Amino acid sequence: MQVEIISIGDELLIGQTINTNASWMGQELSRRGAFVSRVVTISDKTDAIRSAIDEGLNNADVVLVTGGLGPTKDDVTKKVITDYFEDELYIHEETLERVKGFFARMNRPMLEVNVQQAAVPKKCTVLKNMQGTAPGMWLEKNSKILISLPGVPYEMKGIMEQEVFPRLEHLFGLKQFYAKTANLQGVGESYIADKMAVWEDNLRSNGLELAYLPSPGLVRLRITSLNGQSDEALIDACFRELEEAYPENLYGYGDASLAEITGNLLKQYGATVATAESCTGGALAASLVSVPGSSAYFHGGFLTYTNELKHTILGVQQEHFTTVGAVSEEVVREMAAGGKNKLNVDYCVSISGIAGPDGGTEEKPVGTVWIGIASPKRVVAKRFLFSDNRERVINRTVLSALNFLRNEILWNHQ
Amino acid sequence: MQVEIISIGDELLIGQTINTNASWMGQELSRRGAFVSRVVTISDKTDAIRSAIDEGLNNADVVLVTGGLGPTKDDVTKKVITDYFEDELYIHEETLERVKGFFARMNRPMLEVNVQQAAVPKKCTVLKNMQGTAPGMWLEKNSKILISLPGVPYEMKGIMEQEVFPRLEHLFGLKQFYAKTANLQGVGESYIADKMAVWEDNLRSNGLELAYLPSPGLVRLRITSLNGQSDEALIDACFRELEEAYPENLYGYGDASLAEITGNLLKQYGATVATAESCTGGALAASLVSVPGSSAYFHGGFLTYTNELKHTILGVQQEHFTTVGAVSEEVVREMAAGGKNKLNVDYCVSISGIAGPDGGTEEKPVGTVWIGIASPKRVVAKRFLFSDNRERVINRTVLSALNFLRNEILWNHQ
Repeated sequence: MQVEIISIGDELLIGQTINTNASWMGQELSRRGAFVSRVVTISDKTDAIRSAIDEGLNNADVVLVTGGLGPTKDDVTKKVITDYFEDELYIHEETLERVKGFFARMNRPMLEVNVQQAAVPKKCTVLKNMQGTAPGMWLEKNSKILISLPGVPYEMKGIMEQEVFPRLEHLFGLKQFYAKTANLQGVGESYIADKMAVWEDNLRSNGLELAYLPSPGLVRLRITSLNGQSDEALIDACFRELEEAYPENLYGYGDASLAEITGNLLKQYGATVATAESCTGGALAASLVSVPGSSAYFHGGFLTYTNELKHTILGVQQEHFTTVGAVSEEVVREMAAGGKNKLNVDYCVSISGIAGPDGGTEEKPVGTVWIGIASPKRVVAKRFLFSDNRERVINRTVLSALNFLRNEILWNHQ
Repeated sequence: MQVEIISIGDELLIGQTINTNASWMGQELSRRGAFVSRVVTISDKTDAIRSAIDEGLNNADVVLVTGGLGPTKDDVTKKVITDYFEDELYIHEETLERVKGFFARMNRPMLEVNVQQAAVPKKCTVLKNMQGTAPGMWLEKNSKILISLPGVPYEMKGIMEQEVFPRLEHLFGLKQFYAKTANLQGVGESYIADKMAVWEDNLRSNGLELAYLPSPGLVRLRITSLNGQSDEALIDACFRELEEAYPENLYGYGDASLAEITGNLLKQYGATVATAESCTGGALAASLVSVPGSSAYFHGGFLTYTNELKHTILGVQQEHFTTVGAVSEEVVREMAAGGKNKLNVDYCVSISGIAGPDGGTEEKPVGTVWIGIASPKRVVAKRFLFSDNRERVINRTVLSALNFLRNEILWNHQ
């Protein structure tokens, strides 16, 4: 079953509103095995709507139209649809009663424009809107289906769930796609694609689909099966190969964030954590604290942006600043050890780097970051080089520190 | 000038990614007087891309294509475009050098797929990508223009601003709207709309347009003139009235963030700052540090998530935790004073609150936050109540703390 989505509204074209309706519909339809082939966003103009509907019904089995059903003058969708189906409008009594009830409950006067919301084409099946006044409409022509829905997100979602999906499932016997997503930190998509080329080919020849979903510092790999849940074991086997190839990078599956997964590990082992941050200025701690329930393991931290505070608060030896510099293995090791000791926690993660845009040298360019961890069994440190602007250097540093911590917790408990 | 936007990517159709690129382009193009007539979102398939390009070039003067330029196999856009223009690919030396430099700076090996990122159609004008490896491409056919850009938002935006807008302005004589935006913190848009109703009417009867651009914790008010720069004085006069109505809320104009503006004030007065944070876990400090050059005024901070650390590190009296509780005026005052004293700074901002989802009581519900500031002349504290989820409570707390600090610096120097 092919679907085309038509989103109507000038506010979408001028970027005043982001088209979250189309994303939600795309998500829900794909989950049910329908294939969204195109999303077309157009203005409130008659011609644009008419030709989009025409194209949509030519291309797809089902056309979902959102927007343009409100009571204000600039909403012409209903008229265009009625003309397109060579039909005429009439007042749908059941809807009118519902609209009247709506206004009575809100204790507001009902205007003539509101009565017109109950007008629908004669040929249409009315889709009840339990969340608002404008009803949805279902029309058929040459065994193609056109569904028109209001643009208000919660009204659209209500009608989709209560009226549209049950009908489509019945008509098209929609099956459920099965998809699983693995999340990796610290390795770029092009390196994975290069190293895993054979794996990727095998996967495709097994009828599975692979998608790379990169974001700064992270890559998500999604494997989809068109055969539904029955391919679950096959997909799990593919991901086990990926785990073996990237044991330190692959941190989890699905929607759980790296901060959440690292936090869960700390909780699991009853361990506590603190941070000693310089160039990230608290961003690592803020990421840990963003997880609900983080008070179970996060105790606190020191933000030591100046060398003086690294010395007085964390006990970093003064001489390091002149010999190896603040961005060095020696300094992050002493920061981590000092923080762990002072805050009496199991793990302390330290960060010292050059976030930029200034402060870089030939030997230590902008983006150079040292991360240290003092853990129950040892103190370790790693050097990273991120080439990006300040915001993204900080973001990548936080993700790298979280994954470094995750691996260090696992090492301590192996 | 009519523009059609083509957004390529299965992740958009299945709703895994929301199409924010199209919104941003729509916004920026409308501001410049260009008319976006359609946004078409399609899959990574050759046929879909080819026919969308064909339709786009028939409908509009300029077609903007985003996505499908990455190094992985599922990205076919470049090949389709090259075929459509009956052209062939060659390695663009300047781009190759740039890509090589990019990998050299990152100290990473360059793969064959990365070399291919420098391949472009012979007929195209290369649009330099200063933020990533895939270059933009500009092609012309029958006096229509096709522009292909990477789908990574910051790369797309960089090329649009540095390469595309200047060319379009030159070619189509796009007029520059004149717009100015005022930024307010700590007051809701509906309250402004209510209090400033007469002001808003006057503004519109002067031919100006007003838009409210709300985001969590902030409201931006944009006044636009279709007459260009000539209305500058009129707009400034309108904003002066707004400043008088909201002296503590209106913190600045244009794109400068609240952290930047507060940081600039600190720099201006040669003052230093630190934080002592509990429920925000470093998010306030991270916000201050996100500003380039913040090392001039940000010295460091203490993250004291547990009561024990509030006592041992900051010197908060133990008895407060049993009498008034950790989320109280007494505690944030002592946190701020203790932090200022220990870190030897001019200003120390302290935060203690209940970010949720757990920990609320009838007297102190989730979203209750106390913010304290120790400044050269006094220690002050304020209570806030934010009703929202954990992430937004933290976000609003940070913005409120920054604006509180900004007003406190001004008070100290009045």
